[in-house]
Amino acid sequence: MRLSTLDNGTRDGELVVVHRDGTRAASARAIAPTLQAALDRWSATEPLLRALANDIDAGRVDAAPLDLARVLAPIPRPYEWVDGSAYINHIVLVRKARGAEPPETLLTDPLVYQGGTSEMRGPRAPIPLPDPSWGCDFEAEVGVILDDVPRGTNVANALAHVKLFVILNDVTYRNLIPPELAKGFGFFTSKPATSFAPFAVTPDELGDALKDGRVHLRLRSTLNGELAGDPEAGPEMHFSFADLIQHITKTRAFTAGTVLGSGTVSNKDRARGVSCLAERRTLETLDSGKPTTPFMKPGDRIAIEMLDASGRSIFGRIDQEVVAVPA
Amino acid sequence: MRLSTLDNGTRDGELVVVHRDGTRAASARAIAPTLQAALDRWSATEPLLRALANDIDAGRVDAAPLDLARVLAPIPRPYEWVDGSAYINHIVLVRKARGAEPPETLLTDPLVYQGGTSEMRGPRAPIPLPDPSWGCDFEAEVGVILDDVPRGTNVANALAHVKLFVILNDVTYRNLIPPELAKGFGFFTSKPATSFAPFAVTPDELGDALKDGRVHLRLRSTLNGELAGDPEAGPEMHFSFADLIQHITKTRAFTAGTVLGSGTVSNKDRARGVSCLAERRTLETLDSGKPTTPFMKPGDRIAIEMLDASGRSIFGRIDQEVVAVPA
Repeated sequence: MRLSTLDNGTRDGELVVVHRDGTRAASARAIAPTLQAALDRWSATEPLLRALANDIDAGRVDAAPLDLARVLAPIPRPYEWVDGSAYINHIVLVRKARGAEPPETLLTDPLVYQGGTSEMRGPRAPIPLPDPSWGCDFEAEVGVILDDVPRGTNVANALAHVKLFVILNDVTYRNLIPPELAKGFGFFTSKPATSFAPFAVTPDELGDALKDGRVHLRLRSTLNGELAGDPEAGPEMHFSFADLIQHITKTRAFTAGTVLGSGTVSNKDRARGVSCLAERRTLETLDSGKPTTPFMKPGDRIAIEMLDASGRSIFGRIDQEVVAVPA
Repeated sequence: MRLSTLDNGTRDGELVVVHRDGTRAASARAIAPTLQAALDRWSATEPLLRALANDIDAGRVDAAPLDLARVLAPIPRPYEWVDGSAYINHIVLVRKARGAEPPETLLTDPLVYQGGTSEMRGPRAPIPLPDPSWGCDFEAEVGVILDDVPRGTNVANALAHVKLFVILNDVTYRNLIPPELAKGFGFFTSKPATSFAPFAVTPDELGDALKDGRVHLRLRSTLNGELAGDPEAGPEMHFSFADLIQHITKTRAFTAGTVLGSGTVSNKDRARGVSCLAERRTLETLDSGKPTTPFMKPGDRIAIEMLDASGRSIFGRIDQEVVAVPA
């Protein structure tokens, strides 16, 4: 089942169930007005949403063409957005880029940060850039949306709390990071609004590609029409979503609708390219002494999607343009 | 006007307006079911809530006794919780405690961290302590609740977005901080659920004590019946709430209901005591080579309140017991 959220003039949008062809959808308002409301009582709403999906696919319920310009983030303002950094290759490369060492506990203690949630953006929303010197970068990631997760959830019980998968663009102002992290309190202004692909999908949509709490498919990023990278999201995700859930619940519980990200998908094999420009710039620096790829500037377009073995775009496509805005 | 949120069996509780005597309240459900719903359209709901407050105070609307055991956090799951660290004395002391230097930009660039929001707790909620070795500490703070704040809000326009004031206990597992901050991504497991005093109050409730985006009153913390500290919250708040709002909106907007904290209230004058045990332990170490005050353990009680010039407890009283829970 694939779900989407449409702009209906409210803060939280309207939940729709997507036809299996990915081009049409029908309102789920009779079941739950929003995806958050559905997740607040998922055991009751999920079977109803699946029944609606069956009716849509069978033509028993009319589905209207899905206008991607009206699609919002699956949850436009989730209660929590927690982003991991589970691909070790990414951590090593971006820390090299800013002359920082990876943490000593790199392989044993997951890295996560608490992100802002006020304005999650849809797949066609522009990326505002008030100041090009901030170093605007994309970060292509896989994410999950959780139900209520108790404190002290362990790896063995963690994946039962994963209700939906998403892909996302964790936009980063790369040049704001060094002074911010030097203060010791983590990211804040360096992480503006995050954007999401059109569909949040139930785990069954991933089929055999979902194994061990990881999505074993390639995440494809295209910058201005040229492939930036299509790394495998599975094998090099050092900490699985189960590991990340165990980590984040060590001292507190999470409410339904929490979004948990994988961190930038990254492979050691250079042939797989990159899911952010910071990695490419680091590789350029290692090879030739300085970066040659600029960060994104107004007019640049970043597209992110994930195809399954049959070539279907599971989550639909993020396709965003960077736009200049007043500082 | 003072508002409170009562447990009614739902996730978000029920908004009530408090009688001016602070012991009774009446439901605001005819105006807005929850405080978040009220803040989502504050310009429409605030006058109605004020009219209800007048009716309650005049006896035209019945108010029932307020059961503090049923009081939740004003917003039990806000969309964002951003905590500043605006009292320089606190930063200097707690960093000394863990052998870290204050950031170079201490006086020019505000420190804030993004906090978790899933389980904000009420004034009588226990503080769960799965492991006493984590070093359970309280942190007494002043906070504000904002309406929608655009990206790029400057100091001159910031205070118009402050709709309510609160006081809070930003519970911290002090011994989880050093390994967490060493990873470079900020606090996460070291910051469990935050607790709030019973009343969120409109700015007019602070009268002349509200000046320059700071609350010029003492915040009083009592541990096991003994005064821990009653520092002035005003003069040594180096960055005002206006400064903090300008800082956090540099690259993104905030949705109505965002909670913004001052950081632990702290005065240089040792006679004012402390608003957290980490400061006292640092002072003990400076004086005698080692800390003698233990962190909180099961059975300890921490109370926090703020009295106005007439002795009225503006926000009501946080009064929490630390309780052992399974890890």
